[in-house]
Amino acid sequence: MSQTAQRAASAIELAEALIACPSVTPATGMVFDCLESQLAPLGFEVHRFVAGEAPDGPVENLYAVRRGPVGTRHFSFAGHVDVVPPGEGWTTAPFLPERRGELLYGRGAVDMKGSVAAMIAAASEIPAEAGTISFIITGDEEGPAVHGTRALMDWMAANGEKPDLILVGEPTSVHRLGDMMKIGRRGSVNIFLTVEGVQGHVAYPHLADNPITRLVAMLAELDALVLDEGTEWFQASNLEVTDLAVGNPAHNVIPARAEARISIRFNDRHTGAELGARVSAIAQKHGGTARPVISGEAFLTQPGEFSALLARAIEAETGVAPELSTSGGTSDARFLKDIAPVIEFGLCNATMHKRDEAVALADLEALARIYRRVTLAAFEG
Amino acid sequence: MSQTAQRAASAIELAEALIACPSVTPATGMVFDCLESQLAPLGFEVHRFVAGEAPDGPVENLYAVRRGPVGTRHFSFAGHVDVVPPGEGWTTAPFLPERRGELLYGRGAVDMKGSVAAMIAAASEIPAEAGTISFIITGDEEGPAVHGTRALMDWMAANGEKPDLILVGEPTSVHRLGDMMKIGRRGSVNIFLTVEGVQGHVAYPHLADNPITRLVAMLAELDALVLDEGTEWFQASNLEVTDLAVGNPAHNVIPARAEARISIRFNDRHTGAELGARVSAIAQKHGGTARPVISGEAFLTQPGEFSALLARAIEAETGVAPELSTSGGTSDARFLKDIAPVIEFGLCNATMHKRDEAVALADLEALARIYRRVTLAAFEG
Repeated sequence: MSQTAQRAASAIELAEALIACPSVTPATGMVFDCLESQLAPLGFEVHRFVAGEAPDGPVENLYAVRRGPVGTRHFSFAGHVDVVPPGEGWTTAPFLPERRGELLYGRGAVDMKGSVAAMIAAASEIPAEAGTISFIITGDEEGPAVHGTRALMDWMAANGEKPDLILVGEPTSVHRLGDMMKIGRRGSVNIFLTVEGVQGHVAYPHLADNPITRLVAMLAELDALVLDEGTEWFQASNLEVTDLAVGNPAHNVIPARAEARISIRFNDRHTGAELGARVSAIAQKHGGTARPVISGEAFLTQPGEFSALLARAIEAETGVAPELSTSGGTSDARFLKDIAPVIEFGLCNATMHKRDEAVALADLEALARIYRRVTLAAFEG
Repeated sequence: MSQTAQRAASAIELAEALIACPSVTPATGMVFDCLESQLAPLGFEVHRFVAGEAPDGPVENLYAVRRGPVGTRHFSFAGHVDVVPPGEGWTTAPFLPERRGELLYGRGAVDMKGSVAAMIAAASEIPAEAGTISFIITGDEEGPAVHGTRALMDWMAANGEKPDLILVGEPTSVHRLGDMMKIGRRGSVNIFLTVEGVQGHVAYPHLADNPITRLVAMLAELDALVLDEGTEWFQASNLEVTDLAVGNPAHNVIPARAEARISIRFNDRHTGAELGARVSAIAQKHGGTARPVISGEAFLTQPGEFSALLARAIEAETGVAPELSTSGGTSDARFLKDIAPVIEFGLCNATMHKRDEAVALADLEALARIYRRVTLAAFEG
């Protein structure tokens, strides 16, 4: 295949080639060689670098760009080619792509090698003079994401690469292709709570200080918090206690220490730091401590031109009017929103992270057409 | 030594002989051979039997009786010759009794081979015609106490042995010999709480049911309970949460199950069954379950003739007026109270269950005199 080939590779063929490169997170090497071999013939400059060390790395990252004429817009496709481990119980070999009926099976089929393939197929059918297209592709989205997209953003900043719009290809569709895009994500913070007490015999409680009593009071107060009632685009922020740990096998002993872990998913009324401070104050009131670890801040790309262009492209190709959602977990969009408006749209997520992950062949082709259509519209708009 | 020996063995010598027989709970064999060799020459009929199987047994038990004339009272000494494991860090060999200065060192010196030795020394100086004396001695007080004193009580019932008063030799003295006797004990119940929920992703809490939320509410309600304000002879009943367990390593997962354990030490206003039912009702209100395991019921030997005789004997030998207490943990007195009024009195407990367990030589001899004095007084009274 070359820039002047009569027939570009289809999204299905590109997806098969990517799936055939095992790339459990963190990914390096072969899957990026494959990606480069797909992008270079389309006229993309391909930049690759490896970051990090075990256990979070090494991680490979790829930035590819095909520049349009001066004054045209810069549209970025963002995503990842690492995948979660296949697990057991597959009816196909997870890294041997297999078409069966209307479906293509393989780890990464929907999350998100299929989507990356659709992006490349779309780019292959867009004239180079229409505008600047880039790919921001990491090998560490499914892992701790420490050496992935953030490292790519550092590289882009250092090299003056600044997209105008970013489309992340995470599998956002639920029941059918096109029914949901994500215009934002809730933030996430885990907070580790510890209460130290004084160990002692239960028969002599006045000589001990039971840390569980104070932890329970602290957690009851945290469970009773109403963080907000939701916003126009976000559901209400939510706090869950996800673990309790004392580990005291002795029935007649008051333990010296009690621990809990909470997880808060929060909307754009909050920041991780503010919630950490609020929980810390409650923990201190009960004689405990709180250690917040922020996974990501909430963000919202205000509905407007970008979401409208994408919704029109989706509706034109599928007949479905997409819901604009901020539900669900986190993705690398939580980092990318710092450099440009970002929206996520991709395949149906029913089989992601499961055995027998599969994508409808027709969806792969339709997604490529949607990506092509929204890119062209962005260049025209 | 024989029934007609000029000089009976001293409490110190008897204690040394018992300490020299290793008898980590559950105990059988040698330590009982030693005990029999001390009691038989004093005119006691000795009955021994072994009960139970691993891991709670086998346990040896001994009942010895020297009958007084018909119409005289029956005074029982009760106790145990099993000991807790010695642990590490001793400055003597735990099972090699060693006199150093004014102290005798060895595992069991105060809890309670020293006390058993004092009982035997006392019996050796009481004329057989004064009354009936018996020994109720188990090899399983420090363990689960399943095949120990309760098995002895069954044997006694089957053989028509019925004491009028029982003195248990647990180390009840605190700062100096004689400062405290125990006229009752609180009861103890452990309750295992479980809440089942529905596991799920923290980003989708509406699809899950967090069992920790309900466990925390349950525990907050339990912690707020005021069981009573104490009684004339008992401190207030007390509830402690002694363990929490979820075991969820996944930060983004709501777990399926949460567990806690509570311990209630309760006075004679309550029974274990009533408290178990009360906690179960609260657990059920929060969608959980409670499994009570009763370790012992509360009991009180009303202050009266027995405590007065003992207090006078203590004061005559030590000059100390003993406090009548119901504090602390449980002992086999919780079983024996079913067959006769029972009081506990013994050595200073500062070193019990610790390394370098030791008893003052003078205390051993004074305790033997106190035991002799109270027994004679009971026979006269």
